[in-house]
Amino acid sequence: MKSLSGGPGTVSGLLLRVGQILFSSASIGVTLSAFNSLGFSSFCWLLATMVLQVLWSSGLVCFDVCALRIKRDIRDPGIASFLVFGDWVIATLSLSSACSSGAVTVLYAIDWNVCSQVPISCIRLQVCVAMAFIAWFLTAISFLVTFWMLGSV
Amino acid sequence: MKSLSGGPGTVSGLLLRVGQILFSSASIGVTLSAFNSLGFSSFCWLLATMVLQVLWSSGLVCFDVCALRIKRDIRDPGIASFLVFGDWVIATLSLSSACSSGAVTVLYAIDWNVCSQVPISCIRLQVCVAMAFIAWFLTAISFLVTFWMLGSV
Repeated sequence: MKSLSGGPGTVSGLLLRVGQILFSSASIGVTLSAFNSLGFSSFCWLLATMVLQVLWSSGLVCFDVCALRIKRDIRDPGIASFLVFGDWVIATLSLSSACSSGAVTVLYAIDWNVCSQVPISCIRLQVCVAMAFIAWFLTAISFLVTFWMLGSV
Repeated sequence: MKSLSGGPGTVSGLLLRVGQILFSSASIGVTLSAFNSLGFSSFCWLLATMVLQVLWSSGLVCFDVCALRIKRDIRDPGIASFLVFGDWVIATLSLSSACSSGAVTVLYAIDWNVCSQVPISCIRLQVCVAMAFIAWFLTAISFLVTFWMLGSV
């Protein structure tokens, strides 16, 4: 199995995980700050998947830090399979929640153009959806790199 | 590059493509039949991505049929890279549109419970979203198989 930039146990892989945690946490923060006015199922779903994203990426930050500290080469197909499966699930859930919240935002801001009339801050809606999309994008990169490594066993 | 069941140029790959066309077409049909009452951005997006899905999968049905008729082994990394990129884009777009339409459906059917009060057939909403999710799932399988083949070059 080839080692690739962005894969598990590398500095770039660690940076990707840290980025995932930062953007997911930002999305959670903005969603929570406006939760009273965003109490739709889509935003509950966004909150749930972003929490899951933070937990998953935090675990993998610990894993990457340990691998880098003991300078051990982590290219085990078993570990890679587990990471690929986890990243695939998390990336799919993140994309689904980002798109769901995005759809509700578009419905309010564009289809009905009611942002100025109802007590919903459209900027907050847009920010939490944008953060979720960035978190998804970073997870998708981690997934693709690890899947490629696994395929090259 | 290993040849895998469900990959390009195989009978199972062809069946996957036919399934993608069938479910995308079904989703387009149901969306169009209720378009007057579903004129939201999310359903326009669903319609656009499902049309794109049908076009992409139809092209690949022709490709698979040609490959099977001339019994030629298609395991070229260039072709596989093109298919992986296309499948990744189409799968991401399909999932995003299915989730967006699903979010609007949930908003109507569960959050506001207004299905019986407004002239929107919730059954149609649910059916076109379900068809789009199945089409996405079949495209995701095609993507994963081809990406795995490409990784094993």
